[in-house]
Amino acid sequence: MVADLETDELVPPSINEIISAHARIKRYIHRTPVLTSATFNQMLGAHLYFKCENFQKAGAFKARGAHNAVFALSDEEARNGVATHSSGNHGAALALAARSRDIPATVIMPRNAPTVKIDAVRNYGAEVVFCEPNNPAREAALDEVVAQTGAYFVHPYNNSQVIAGQGTCALEMVDEIRDLNVIITPVGGGGLLSGTAIAAKSFQPDIRVFAAEPEQADDAYRSMQSGKIEPMESPQTIADGLKTPLGTLTFPIIQREVDGIFLVSEDEIVESMKLIWERLKIVIEPSCATVLAALLKNKDAFFGQRIGLVLTGGNVDLGKLPW
Amino acid sequence: MVADLETDELVPPSINEIISAHARIKRYIHRTPVLTSATFNQMLGAHLYFKCENFQKAGAFKARGAHNAVFALSDEEARNGVATHSSGNHGAALALAARSRDIPATVIMPRNAPTVKIDAVRNYGAEVVFCEPNNPAREAALDEVVAQTGAYFVHPYNNSQVIAGQGTCALEMVDEIRDLNVIITPVGGGGLLSGTAIAAKSFQPDIRVFAAEPEQADDAYRSMQSGKIEPMESPQTIADGLKTPLGTLTFPIIQREVDGIFLVSEDEIVESMKLIWERLKIVIEPSCATVLAALLKNKDAFFGQRIGLVLTGGNVDLGKLPW
Repeated sequence: MVADLETDELVPPSINEIISAHARIKRYIHRTPVLTSATFNQMLGAHLYFKCENFQKAGAFKARGAHNAVFALSDEEARNGVATHSSGNHGAALALAARSRDIPATVIMPRNAPTVKIDAVRNYGAEVVFCEPNNPAREAALDEVVAQTGAYFVHPYNNSQVIAGQGTCALEMVDEIRDLNVIITPVGGGGLLSGTAIAAKSFQPDIRVFAAEPEQADDAYRSMQSGKIEPMESPQTIADGLKTPLGTLTFPIIQREVDGIFLVSEDEIVESMKLIWERLKIVIEPSCATVLAALLKNKDAFFGQRIGLVLTGGNVDLGKLPW
Repeated sequence: MVADLETDELVPPSINEIISAHARIKRYIHRTPVLTSATFNQMLGAHLYFKCENFQKAGAFKARGAHNAVFALSDEEARNGVATHSSGNHGAALALAARSRDIPATVIMPRNAPTVKIDAVRNYGAEVVFCEPNNPAREAALDEVVAQTGAYFVHPYNNSQVIAGQGTCALEMVDEIRDLNVIITPVGGGGLLSGTAIAAKSFQPDIRVFAAEPEQADDAYRSMQSGKIEPMESPQTIADGLKTPLGTLTFPIIQREVDGIFLVSEDEIVESMKLIWERLKIVIEPSCATVLAALLKNKDAFFGQRIGLVLTGGNVDLGKLPW
C-alpha cells in the first residue's frame, strides 16, 4: 500500500507546483527573515545572506514540505490521517501540519530517539510508534501503521509535494534578495536541495546551486561521482539531519540541477556552528553549519559573489553542545 | 576634570532629545527586529513582543547610547577622543562608536575581565588600559587617562546623551508595536530603564514601565524602597550586566517614572535564558533573561496584556553556559 501511494508522487515538481505550494502553505508557516553580517562579509570577501529557517515553525524548513504534502491531499486521502518515519525534524513538522489540518498523525521513531525529539512530536498531538533503530524495522512498523489506520504515508523527502514545499524557501530568497549568484544548502535526503535547485533556476537560470555535506556522511558526494545512489551504513556525524541517503526522486533532480557538493570535516562544522552562534546571535543545528564551513573552506571560489545560505533548523539539545 | 565634564550631562534628557538621538544614530545602528512567539503567548496568556537588541551592533543596546554620546560631541570636544570604564558591553560599544566617528577611544578594564570582552574592545580599535578590579583603582586610572590624553569621558549610564540614546530602543517599540500596555527592561545602572520610561511615557502616558533585577543584585529594588541610592558590595549574579548601582542621574528618573521592580532568582534567570534560546532560537545574555523570568513569576498581574520585553544583549561565552 505504501508503495502504491508513493508512485504518484515520484515525479519532480514543476516551478508552478512550487509556486502553488507557497500559496497553499503561507498562512501556516513563517516567512523567515534573511540576516546579513558585516563581519562575515568581510571575513569571506563576499555578500552573504542567511535564510533563517531555524526560526521556522517547529524549528526547521521541514514545516514547509510537511504542510504542503498534508494540505495537497484530497479530503478522501486525508480522512485517515498521515504517517511517516523520522527521528528528526520531519516527524515534528508532519505532526504540526496534521494538527493544522485537524487530522491524526502517527510518527514511527527509533527507540533510541532523543527524548526532546519525541516530546516535540507528541506536543503537536501526534502518536509516536517506536521501532528498533534499523531500516527493516522502521519500514515494517510503517507498513503496519498504514495497514491498520489507512493513514497516508508522507515520505520525509522522496515525495514530490514535500520537495515542492521545501522549494518555497528558495522562492522567498530569489524574491527578496536581489541578484543572487549562488545558493548553498546542506544535503541529507535531498528534498531541500532539489526543491531549491528547481525554484532558484526557474527564476534565475544562471544562478549556481551547491550543497554542503559532512565528510563522514558523504553519500551524496559519492553518488554524484558514481552516477548511482550510494547508501551508507550508519554514518557518524554531528550533523544528524544529514545522515539519510538520497532518494530515487531527489537524486536525478540533483544530478541535473546541482552545480557541486562540498565536503566539510566535523571540526569545520563545529567551528562554523560556533561562529554563527557568536556572530549572528542565533541558535542553529550542526547540519546547517555545513554551509558556512563549505564557504570558509572554498573562499576563493566565491570571492565577490552574492551568496544565499539556508540555515535549515535550530533544534539542538542545549545540554549537549559540541564545544 | 572628569567631574566638570559630567556636570553638563546630569540633566535628564527630554523626549525631543531622544527623538534627536534617534535621528543622529540611526545610520550607525540596527533597527532591531521584534520577535513574537505563539508558545510564549500561550504560556503567559499575554501578547509578548521581544525587542532583540542582542542583534544590535556590538551585540547590545549599549551601541545606541555610545553612538549618541560620541556623535553629540562638538568637534572641539571630540578632538582628543573618548574614554570610559567598563568591564562589559559599554566598552565595546564606545570603541565602535569612536571608530564610526574616526576618533580614538580608551577603555579602562579590570585586569580580570574575560579575554573575549577585552578582544571585543580591541577589535574595534580602542586602547585598553588595565586597572585593579575595584572602584578607586578604576577611577584613578580613568582620571589619569583623561588628564594625559584630554579624552572626553562617556559614563556608561550617568550621562544624559547616553540615556537619550538608550531611550531610542523604546521609541522604536512604541512606533512599531501597536497599543503596548507594558514595557519591561532589566536594570543595572538604569540608563536603559530611565531612557525607556521617558520615551515610552511621552508617547503613551498610560503605558506602564517595569524593571527586572536579580535578587542577588537587588540594589535598585532597595533604592526604590529606601528613597536613596543603595550601592552594593560586589554582588554575585550570573546577570553580569546588572551588577552596577544606580546613578545620581538615573535614580530620580526611575523614582518618578518607573512603576515597579521585580526581583528574580538565579535559577529563574537561567531557566528563562534557556527557554528563550530553545523557543526563540536566539542567543541572549543572562541579564536580559530577567525580564522573562519576572513575567513568568508574576503571570497573573499581566494576563491579557500587550508586553514589550527588551532583550538587551547577546554577548555570552559559549564555552561557559549555565546549564
